[in-house]
Amino acid sequence: MTRMPRVVEWIGDAEGGVLRILDQTCLPTEVAFRDCHTVEDVWEAIRSLRVRGAPAIGIAAAYGVVIGAQSGASIRDAIDSLRSSRPTAVNLFWALDRMAAKAVRDGPNCGTLLAEAQAIDEENHQMCLAIGRHGASLVPDRGGVLTHCNAGSLIAGEYGTALAPLYTAHANGKRFQVFADETRPLLQGSRLTAWELMQHGLDVTLICDNMAAQVMREGRVQMIVVGADRIAANGDTANKIGTYGLAVLARAHGIPFYVAAPTSTFDLSRSSGDQIPIEQRDSREVTDGFGRPTAPAGVSVYNPAFDVTPAGLITAIVTEHGIIQPIEPATIGAVIHRSQN
Amino acid sequence: MTRMPRVVEWIGDAEGGVLRILDQTCLPTEVAFRDCHTVEDVWEAIRSLRVRGAPAIGIAAAYGVVIGAQSGASIRDAIDSLRSSRPTAVNLFWALDRMAAKAVRDGPNCGTLLAEAQAIDEENHQMCLAIGRHGASLVPDRGGVLTHCNAGSLIAGEYGTALAPLYTAHANGKRFQVFADETRPLLQGSRLTAWELMQHGLDVTLICDNMAAQVMREGRVQMIVVGADRIAANGDTANKIGTYGLAVLARAHGIPFYVAAPTSTFDLSRSSGDQIPIEQRDSREVTDGFGRPTAPAGVSVYNPAFDVTPAGLITAIVTEHGIIQPIEPATIGAVIHRSQN
Repeated sequence: MTRMPRVVEWIGDAEGGVLRILDQTCLPTEVAFRDCHTVEDVWEAIRSLRVRGAPAIGIAAAYGVVIGAQSGASIRDAIDSLRSSRPTAVNLFWALDRMAAKAVRDGPNCGTLLAEAQAIDEENHQMCLAIGRHGASLVPDRGGVLTHCNAGSLIAGEYGTALAPLYTAHANGKRFQVFADETRPLLQGSRLTAWELMQHGLDVTLICDNMAAQVMREGRVQMIVVGADRIAANGDTANKIGTYGLAVLARAHGIPFYVAAPTSTFDLSRSSGDQIPIEQRDSREVTDGFGRPTAPAGVSVYNPAFDVTPAGLITAIVTEHGIIQPIEPATIGAVIHRSQN
Repeated sequence: MTRMPRVVEWIGDAEGGVLRILDQTCLPTEVAFRDCHTVEDVWEAIRSLRVRGAPAIGIAAAYGVVIGAQSGASIRDAIDSLRSSRPTAVNLFWALDRMAAKAVRDGPNCGTLLAEAQAIDEENHQMCLAIGRHGASLVPDRGGVLTHCNAGSLIAGEYGTALAPLYTAHANGKRFQVFADETRPLLQGSRLTAWELMQHGLDVTLICDNMAAQVMREGRVQMIVVGADRIAANGDTANKIGTYGLAVLARAHGIPFYVAAPTSTFDLSRSSGDQIPIEQRDSREVTDGFGRPTAPAGVSVYNPAFDVTPAGLITAIVTEHGIIQPIEPATIGAVIHRSQN
């Protein structure tokens, strides 16, 4: 029985309802919800990472537009405000553009705007379920699966994206052990993935990132599955730092390595991973991450947020429109084409 | 100019002197010393990891025997007490046995016991310098070196063991960048290695363990050097968890991977790494290591303290009696034979 709460949920009717979010900044020690009554509340929830992950941010912002309409103030102002909450979140802009188009078409009506937000929410939910359906057959029964970072229920829908194959396989009766890398420096694996897998009743074991190789060597892992931040036209995949190392280790141990992500993750304007910029982040994430300094003052830190895994190390990419294998521009193009029709 | 303090130091004469230790539990935020006036003080310093690392523990215990002699109480009782401070530390027993033999031979005389403790200290110092001399030629000039955990000045002598080749190469005028893995879960890399390299004036950059693969891929690393907890007769090497994964990644990127350790680390009673037991440690090291919980209550954790790197992934082993390469029972046996003559 799952005890997984909804991450983003509309409570009540169109005119009087509120947006209720699971406050992820309180996890894993506290399960707290926060009701957003104003556009500013929604803005703050996105800004402060109470809601995180591309799909969930888009959905929360869409509901935020409904809240804007409730107040009778300008829809345009509400959308402009929400747009500034996470300046690099492509999915946020996409959802807000869609809500803006709806408002232009049908006027600032709470009911029709809520219907549009719920449509975005539901389409996302179906997308996650489809990734799960396509990927479930890849999951071993009575084996072990290793994952990294968090792209599960906490970012979208019932099942999330990268973890959807695991949830679907589990719902289908497969039983397996999931190893969750803690994912330094921000510990999304220990704070979020371990927590949500426990809520869903899956068998999860937390490890430090540097234990993954030993776990593979001991024969405990038959599948690795991760999400993606961006996938180039040739299949090279940018994802949370540490993903590339896992792919190299998977190859050395003969373990299949899968990426599971929606087709919206593909960026066909980049022919290969070399063209994906790698964000460098604040050194304090590494030295002062959790309440006390763990490194000498003034030490140099290298803190790339992502790495790029070459397509040649990826066994297959699981999308809502099917599994891409082998990974090459033609097979990728075919799935993208399907997603646009 | 080095600002590296002595880790273990005798202050004063034999009858009235004290053992001064650098309290490593205060690092990296505070450089604090603690004077041990009684055998209990020394016992507590070893027990509480204020002094850590096999050589430093042995030296501290040897000086602890001198402190026992100062009080006029039983040398045997002092030695038995110190023996219980870290029950699995082979080097501790070796140093105490040597002090006991000295006391039997020459009586419980503070002067002769201090001379014996200082001989142990000096021999260790020379051993570290010899590892540095043998290993320095392997260090690239104007390149990058990656290391893991801590087996440097903080565990022994002026230069330590695994880091001795780097310190010697630096003293010889080579300039290079050192990447220090933070080394989860206990963060010896960020707390200790980064700190001591800074004290010695080396150019150190801290990374999370899961960033090592990306740093290698970017061509920033021309050498990897690590220590060892135990080396089997065939060269298989047990060391801090994460070492094995680095060795696999080094091979995939064509980077030489060295182990630097004293010959006392070899355990010829183990024919291969399969026979080295892997200690499993408390899950709270992973879930509660940063001052507040970073994982859900009750989560399963797998926390092996060590892993075993097969000899086939190790380019060479640097000892105080020379470099072992190729790594096979015959070349290992020859160096061990040299160490016994």
